Amino acid sequence: MNEFDLIAALSAKLPTNAKVIVGAGDDCAVIHSGRPGRALLFKADAIVEGIHFLPSTAPESVGHKALARALSDIAAMAGRPVAALVTLALPRNFDPAQVQKIYDGMNALAARHGVAIVGGETTSNPERLLLSVALLGEVATAKCVYRSGSKAGDAIFVTGELGGSLAGKHLDFEPRLAEAHWLAEHFTIHAMIDLSDGLAGDLRHLMKSANLGAELLTRNIPVSRAARLRAKTESPTKPPLVAALSDGEDYELLFAVAPSDAVALADGWRKEFPKLKLSCIGKMTAATGLKLRDDHGVRSLEAHGYVHFA
Amino acid sequence: MNEFDLIAALSAKLPTNAKVIVGAGDDCAVIHSGRPGRALLFKADAIVEGIHFLPSTAPESVGHKALARALSDIAAMAGRPVAALVTLALPRNFDPAQVQKIYDGMNALAARHGVAIVGGETTSNPERLLLSVALLGEVATAKCVYRSGSKAGDAIFVTGELGGSLAGKHLDFEPRLAEAHWLAEHFTIHAMIDLSDGLAGDLRHLMKSANLGAELLTRNIPVSRAARLRAKTESPTKPPLVAALSDGEDYELLFAVAPSDAVALADGWRKEFPKLKLSCIGKMTAATGLKLRDDHGVRSLEAHGYVHFA
Repeated sequence: MNEFDLIAALSAKLPTNAKVIVGAGDDCAVIHSGRPGRALLFKADAIVEGIHFLPSTAPESVGHKALARALSDIAAMAGRPVAALVTLALPRNFDPAQVQKIYDGMNALAARHGVAIVGGETTSNPERLLLSVALLGEVATAKCVYRSGSKAGDAIFVTGELGGSLAGKHLDFEPRLAEAHWLAEHFTIHAMIDLSDGLAGDLRHLMKSANLGAELLTRNIPVSRAARLRAKTESPTKPPLVAALSDGEDYELLFAVAPSDAVALADGWRKEFPKLKLSCIGKMTAATGLKLRDDHGVRSLEAHGYVHFA
Repeated sequence: MNEFDLIAALSAKLPTNAKVIVGAGDDCAVIHSGRPGRALLFKADAIVEGIHFLPSTAPESVGHKALARALSDIAAMAGRPVAALVTLALPRNFDPAQVQKIYDGMNALAARHGVAIVGGETTSNPERLLLSVALLGEVATAKCVYRSGSKAGDAIFVTGELGGSLAGKHLDFEPRLAEAHWLAEHFTIHAMIDLSDGLAGDLRHLMKSANLGAELLTRNIPVSRAARLRAKTESPTKPPLVAALSDGEDYELLFAVAPSDAVALADGWRKEFPKLKLSCIGKMTAATGLKLRDDHGVRSLEAHGYVHFA
């Protein structure tokens, strides 16, 4: 039983109530606010030393990443963050000065996005540092974007460049809040997700929740410099395209819109965000399964993320 | 620098915004809901194997405790819980059947109190199990009870019995939500806190936030059977009264009301909650410091919780 199977089994039995609009399974939970036209977003996320960062990672970056990941989930619903709670589980003899630096990283990011940090508990986790962040946000109910609204024929877009995040981006990315607000404000975004598991994995979440497939244009997938560099040096057996499809931790926005909106959206984006690449990478399809199209034709991408490149 | 000093230093620099009514420092953060007369409560809490429970603790009890602690904080503000997010940090090779049992304990408690569990992430914490729970609640703004509202002369009450929680209560306590709602509905509660650090420690939080002292009547402090039993067998050097003052993890409500309300409150309580003891244990005083009064007179209780009993 892997993580996804376990969560699926557990999610089926979770208690709910009349205030829940969407529970487990999207980027954030969505809760009735009691205020007409507005909903609450609710998200928690944890990062762990040795898994999401290294013992040598700068503490400011650790703090930044812990909060930025949760903010990225709020962005994926086109929401606005309001308040965060931070739980630090500290190893034995952890230096208070390091704790302050973790908060420095978190506070700077929070201040940039208008997020209040309304609590900071500490507890003990003797062997390694663990940070858990809970985030409360809000969204106009009519503008909230779910994972599940894609339609066959929708154009698939992705922000930024993909792959090779471990070279540094995973520690200093800026969550795409402004971009998500602009998108939801100006277009009908059918479905959106932030990229944490890698393009192929996260696109499968969009596909599955809408019972659709997708076809990606290989040449349009924005492969990052870091992924290309890594392929040349450290990982010569992993082509850059595979890195872009499967590395994970990109924290970019992946979304689907009606094909009739695609050109206007791409044009508007270039004016609004001239420094951030936006790529139309393919389309949602009625036929299920994830396919890649290149100059040699179309082939399937296996569920486990690996594909044989000649 | 101890935990409290560290949190105080960090709290002074946390970013805030106009939506925050109360940030770090009370049982929950309180956030404007945008809905007149209603506020949001926001709380996160974590429990860690080897610290808050043992490797041998039944997984259902682990789940219960993780959620119950956060619910107890909502109770301390006289709020109602709405939705919870659960993060499980699992050790290597953790049995999925155990995860299901953790959720069984949590789900049963959530269902009893009408709480939805709206997300259940898992991550890895190789050496030990850690559970983090984030809780969203709500409260009528006019009925929300803070730690800080005590007045000199207020009667101090505590629910239940104190001390010896480690004998079992810390794993199966029921958060005092119904009791807190009844109190806030029928009386003006000046200040309230849930007992997690022990009566002496948590009463100091009430005292400090109101710049007051307190005098407790030793004979009125409700010492639990578990604390008496433990004093007879396992801990003959710790008198039961010291256990009641300092053991911690009681998860009872400690609150202050005007002395003119005390009799009516005690009478009403006996009718409403005949099975749950309520004790008037002393009064808030203009003179700072925590004092104990018994048949031999009045003496000070030192800040570190220990007092010499002849």
